[in-house]
Amino acid sequence: MSVSSTAAAVPSLGAKLAAEGFGTFLLVFGGVGTALFASKHFTDPGANSAVYVAIALAFGLALLVAFYAFAPLSGGHFNPAVTLGAAASGRIPWRDAAPYIVSQVVGGVIASTALNLIGMFGPDAWLTTAQDAGFASNGWGPLSPGGFGMLAAIIIEVILTGFFLLVFLGVTHPERGTPFAGIAIGLTLTLIHLVSLPVDFSSVNPARSIATAIYGGVEPLSQLWVFLVFPVVGAMLAGFAYKALFDSKPID
Amino acid sequence: MSVSSTAAAVPSLGAKLAAEGFGTFLLVFGGVGTALFASKHFTDPGANSAVYVAIALAFGLALLVAFYAFAPLSGGHFNPAVTLGAAASGRIPWRDAAPYIVSQVVGGVIASTALNLIGMFGPDAWLTTAQDAGFASNGWGPLSPGGFGMLAAIIIEVILTGFFLLVFLGVTHPERGTPFAGIAIGLTLTLIHLVSLPVDFSSVNPARSIATAIYGGVEPLSQLWVFLVFPVVGAMLAGFAYKALFDSKPID
Amino acid sequence: MSVSSTAAAVPSLGAKLAAEGFGTFLLVFGGVGTALFASKHFTDPGANSAVYVAIALAFGLALLVAFYAFAPLSGGHFNPAVTLGAAASGRIPWRDAAPYIVSQVVGGVIASTALNLIGMFGPDAWLTTAQDAGFASNGWGPLSPGGFGMLAAIIIEVILTGFFLLVFLGVTHPERGTPFAGIAIGLTLTLIHLVSLPVDFSSVNPARSIATAIYGGVEPLSQLWVFLVFPVVGAMLAGFAYKALFDSKPID
Amino acid sequence: MSVSSTAAAVPSLGAKLAAEGFGTFLLVFGGVGTALFASKHFTDPGANSAVYVAIALAFGLALLVAFYAFAPLSGGHFNPAVTLGAAASGRIPWRDAAPYIVSQVVGGVIASTALNLIGMFGPDAWLTTAQDAGFASNGWGPLSPGGFGMLAAIIIEVILTGFFLLVFLGVTHPERGTPFAGIAIGLTLTLIHLVSLPVDFSSVNPARSIATAIYGGVEPLSQLWVFLVFPVVGAMLAGFAYKALFDSKPID
Repeated sequence: MSVSSTAAAVPSLGAKLAAEGFGTFLLVFGGVGTALFASKHFTDPGANSAVYVAIALAFGLALLVAFYAFAPLSGGHFNPAVTLGAAASGRIPWRDAAPYIVSQVVGGVIASTALNLIGMFGPDAWLTTAQDAGFASNGWGPLSPGGFGMLAAIIIEVILTGFFLLVFLGVTHPERGTPFAGIAIGLTLTLIHLVSLPVDFSSVNPARSIATAIYGGVEPLSQLWVFLVFPVVGAMLAGFAYKALFDSKPID
Repeated sequence: MSVSSTAAAVPSLGAKLAAEGFGTFLLVFGGVGTALFASKHFTDPGANSAVYVAIALAFGLALLVAFYAFAPLSGGHFNPAVTLGAAASGRIPWRDAAPYIVSQVVGGVIASTALNLIGMFGPDAWLTTAQDAGFASNGWGPLSPGGFGMLAAIIIEVILTGFFLLVFLGVTHPERGTPFAGIAIGLTLTLIHLVSLPVDFSSVNPARSIATAIYGGVEPLSQLWVFLVFPVVGAMLAGFAYKALFDSKPID
Repeated sequence: MSVSSTAAAVPSLGAKLAAEGFGTFLLVFGGVGTALFASKHFTDPGANSAVYVAIALAFGLALLVAFYAFAPLSGGHFNPAVTLGAAASGRIPWRDAAPYIVSQVVGGVIASTALNLIGMFGPDAWLTTAQDAGFASNGWGPLSPGGFGMLAAIIIEVILTGFFLLVFLGVTHPERGTPFAGIAIGLTLTLIHLVSLPVDFSSVNPARSIATAIYGGVEPLSQLWVFLVFPVVGAMLAGFAYKALFDSKPID
Repeated sequence: MSVSSTAAAVPSLGAKLAAEGFGTFLLVFGGVGTALFASKHFTDPGANSAVYVAIALAFGLALLVAFYAFAPLSGGHFNPAVTLGAAASGRIPWRDAAPYIVSQVVGGVIASTALNLIGMFGPDAWLTTAQDAGFASNGWGPLSPGGFGMLAAIIIEVILTGFFLLVFLGVTHPERGTPFAGIAIGLTLTLIHLVSLPVDFSSVNPARSIATAIYGGVEPLSQLWVFLVFPVVGAMLAGFAYKALFDSKPID
């Protein structure tokens, strides 16, 4: 219903790009905001692990609600890897990818900038501490919460972004899709964070990684390329694979 | 289905106002009740952060279930900021706002009064302690769980209430809306609490802020104006923006 | 869809009663089982509050899934208070209440008996300790996790069971109902537990209270009457109120 | 919609088996991955119990999203016990069971192998420690988180897999089924884990048990037979019971 209703009154390109920007803002502001405000606030023993569930919920719920609010306008990507995987699978034309990706990156950066602004009115040294700790950036080695290395991050980003796309393409399929798409896509992101927050703080989304790395200092910036390249690799592999395995014959 | 069925048998104004009152009661009784009973009960290390997830879930689930139960009667606002944002976007006539807001405030105050009544039969000094701690009121500075200042509270209330309205208006849109509206709206409130509980204990709803401030003592009352003004500012900005960006042309 | 499909192929009385028994079994086995196994296992600091969220989720998810699995057969009560509130509101004939309630109590007691059986193969003294601690029974005073008194338990049971029925009757309404009923009803039970586990360990369901009290020893049994009487009082008040407020005129 | 759409364009056997393999991969990678990465990372007091909620969510959400993504292709079993229970109830022909089960076991083993690969790039001794601790295998006695014995594991696997099948068969029923099937089935798995993680680390799925036991060392392998036999016993009892109780007469 929500997905197919885009056909009813075709939104303008401006409305589509605004929807992608708003959705990515909500994803970064919600997920990264939860990580920053809660992690810095709770320092009692046991807090880390409860906050870890909170962060996984926050990213997933943000995507779920953004999808239901904005997907009827834009398709609900909010993630350059999703946009490129959708193009790889033939769902959207390649030429649409660039403006979508620009909107996503801009929306994410505005969100992390707003979190910085709020942090300026936080308790003494709050913002400096948050930035020194990497501002919830993705990373490996010393930046990995669990001490995992670069190859661990690369493998898990490829696998998880790949499955993210398999779910996305399955539930938004023109014939086999479902109005439950927003729930499935959002909760896949929660699952992804439950699995990989301890490994590399979970990217699967270059726009989210850019938004935090620019405020996280030198080290997160120097590792950023991994979270630009490998989510896209996983997404495009999944896009081609989905088409080959499940859409190899013309459907109608 | 649930949303559009209001057209089938138009509810009376009394039924609408009762629905808004009941829904706001459930929101305050559920969310604030969880904060009060759980926070006062669990004092072991690590408890704060698990209770924080519980409070975020409680507010969101209360809104989700109230929406499915009462939105077919009243539209499911339960929040003066939502009512005013809906009016700003042209969804409801301005003249309907006042009685809705009165019902919401009355429902919320009855809920916090009931929580006081139950607290009178709590353990020794339970009620006094809860009231001295602010009775789960919104606040900044010394009242902020994480020590954030007034400007942090103002910015985050404007942003989060604004996005709350963008989601609300998107998922209840007459053409692009979805029967998943209750899930999306409720889980947006959970997300909002995950992000901003550490900042100002999350308002985005003047009726909720009034309901707690009247039992929280002098300081929460003196800060109440922020949580009356800025959620409404955010909601109305979002209402006008939604109309301009996504409904600028007549739809049919 | 699921709710109204009961009309398509009318299930036999035996199928209805089996469905009510299975559903109540699942509710008690899931909710009480989580409380017993997790609480006895986790004794590290911070565990209580995370287990508290787990218990609230377990009761709610059990009801949610039981509703989608069995409501097309029986209506999905699994709770004598719901059955009596539905009768009070005119949804089901009074004469159907007795066999439903018998099935619910039997299903709940078989579930708590199965938990006892499993506990016999637990670690040394596990079962004795669990029974001495009340076997997750409802209670007040010394049996209240937070030390709340009898009047607190009575007030909160009346209010929460009342709202449980308002949601149930709203979302299963023949005209204004929704296929999201199972989600709304299940998550209302999670909300109820988040609010009232610290007060009286959350009943709102006489069948659940009976199932645990019979294994909890003398004190829970002596307090059981409160959790038989007041959930039913709340449910029936809500049933009559719903009919008066929202169904006062014939709908068609 | 999603469930019945399998009729529209019948997927090839290869697509069905790929779907079962992908879904089981996601279930094991998500659920077991969460258990391994989070448990090894969080060692602060209180962490165990929050991670326990995370593991229960991870298994359930993985099944929920895999169901919406892949069930329109394959029916969404991802579990030999579900496949055999569905055959017992007459939903699928017995001859379809073998290839499904092979795909499920292969998908699960590839997932646990990928987790091993990632663990090779974890911190020093991470992989050895995880394998020595059983690699999140199911077990009783010394392998039970709560110290429960073999008979406790057998009883709880039979009961929980049985109810898992009652829910599965109910919500995917050709006449009484619901598009909410994925939510109900996934959240039943979360409920199952909340109840039985402390008892035997929750199987109800031989493919999941095989995937972990092969990396868990001698003891988990020696106990594996329990988690091959008794989930299947529970599932087939439920399959026959469902047919006898609820489908005893031809429906139309």
